[in-house]
Amino acid sequence: MMADRVAQNAQLSMLLELSSSPKPGNVDRCHDFRDVSFQQFVISAVSAYPVFRRAALGEVGIGELILEAVKAWREWGLTGNTHFGSLTLLIPLAMAAGRPKALEIEIKSVLESTTVADAINFYKAFDLAGARVADVGDFSLKDKTAMDALKAQEKTLLDLMKLSKDHDLVAREWSTAFQRSFYLSKTLEENVSRYGLNCGVVRTFLLALSEIPDSLIQAKFGENVALQVSARAALALKDEGLSAASGLDRDLLAEDINPGSTADLIAASLFIALTKSLRF
Amino acid sequence: MMADRVAQNAQLSMLLELSSSPKPGNVDRCHDFRDVSFQQFVISAVSAYPVFRRAALGEVGIGELILEAVKAWREWGLTGNTHFGSLTLLIPLAMAAGRPKALEIEIKSVLESTTVADAINFYKAFDLAGARVADVGDFSLKDKTAMDALKAQEKTLLDLMKLSKDHDLVAREWSTAFQRSFYLSKTLEENVSRYGLNCGVVRTFLLALSEIPDSLIQAKFGENVALQVSARAALALKDEGLSAASGLDRDLLAEDINPGSTADLIAASLFIALTKSLRF
Repeated sequence: MMADRVAQNAQLSMLLELSSSPKPGNVDRCHDFRDVSFQQFVISAVSAYPVFRRAALGEVGIGELILEAVKAWREWGLTGNTHFGSLTLLIPLAMAAGRPKALEIEIKSVLESTTVADAINFYKAFDLAGARVADVGDFSLKDKTAMDALKAQEKTLLDLMKLSKDHDLVAREWSTAFQRSFYLSKTLEENVSRYGLNCGVVRTFLLALSEIPDSLIQAKFGENVALQVSARAALALKDEGLSAASGLDRDLLAEDINPGSTADLIAASLFIALTKSLRF
Repeated sequence: MMADRVAQNAQLSMLLELSSSPKPGNVDRCHDFRDVSFQQFVISAVSAYPVFRRAALGEVGIGELILEAVKAWREWGLTGNTHFGSLTLLIPLAMAAGRPKALEIEIKSVLESTTVADAINFYKAFDLAGARVADVGDFSLKDKTAMDALKAQEKTLLDLMKLSKDHDLVAREWSTAFQRSFYLSKTLEENVSRYGLNCGVVRTFLLALSEIPDSLIQAKFGENVALQVSARAALALKDEGLSAASGLDRDLLAEDINPGSTADLIAASLFIALTKSLRF
């Protein structure tokens, strides 16, 4: 696929994920967060385009591209973390989509070819983004000496992700060659075809949230809260309209509970669906 | 300026214009039209990126690029007219921004170098887009024989725009080397600095609408309605909050009155401001 088309699909995935509403607890078309606005997410998606294009052209390593994307936020005047998780999923997907074989095959080879340099650049990007995840055993992302340890033990970025797979949804995708993103992309296509674009994205988000607790909620509020949110998402799915989703949205916003990792998964699923065949 | 940066500024101008709310009578973050949704405008902005990039690289003529951009809508499954006016302003601006001298100087030379081929491609694009403007004297855009007349009389795209300058805001910008867009870009910077991004864009839109009646309203509903809308925009500006703007928005939507040309001007002003210095 042409590099521009890949970049467009990746950028559109971010923007459609952002624009669908109500997407309980996340910034969406209808509400901002106190510290980050809808417009800032739009700027972040615009800033990522050249990085996605370079990923599709296969010019540079994943770690360097993630770091470049986070540096681009700062050049555009963005101060917080907007799309760190989404970039970590979409950049390898964009690299895979730029290659000739099927996405399922190419993504494996992209992930398996990551290096120690990718891991180090990822650390730098993580630090610059001010991202939040649970600690990763010996390679705590809060620990500045981790880089030396990475080098000494020759850990690649894929190795690092495997260490985090049980407590971070993004790392889980890396460790399973994006198994769940591919599954969700099929559900997404069915939901969009049945309910239309906005409602289809919202229902896929609710399904994803109901099936596996969000790891960002877990890192901030613990397992019990994450499980309760998933149970409520399952309930909201029973309403074929969007009023139960709107109710859940109000409650999560009031408590500052943000299923951000699930939103990242939806962006990845949108990318896969757009790359394969999704049209509106 | 680098081609990617130019394309990003142009795309972001479309997306920020779209996302600001309430922008009375237009599709915005808070409401769709019956026949075209917020998401379709997002897809349209994503589809335009490679065209803006090519414009900045100076590879192709304006008419061909406008036609290419409208063809891209169809490839992305968009069936209606989303950004025809905005593209007609932003493509020459992107070409100018890709050149070395100041935007005010380069835009003149870009417009003055348009050809008969640009005029013919513009006609084709206009037809494909299903755009709406008032007729242009001997060169009615509804008239299929107009292309032959254009060729016979060797009219360039700039000539064509000059014929429409009194009854179309976009053509007026072409005929005056974007005089009003440059003026509004300064106002926009002041408003964004004073009121923040969203409110700053909304107030600049209201000011533009109050100063000169919208030509799309005029083409659809006549001069009187266009003048009344401008008077109401002037009143809404007296409210430093956004509730008067919200009231005007509700009324215009109920009557299907859409100041679309003024929205195109705001996109052009955002582009100029972003190219010069605007940051958030």
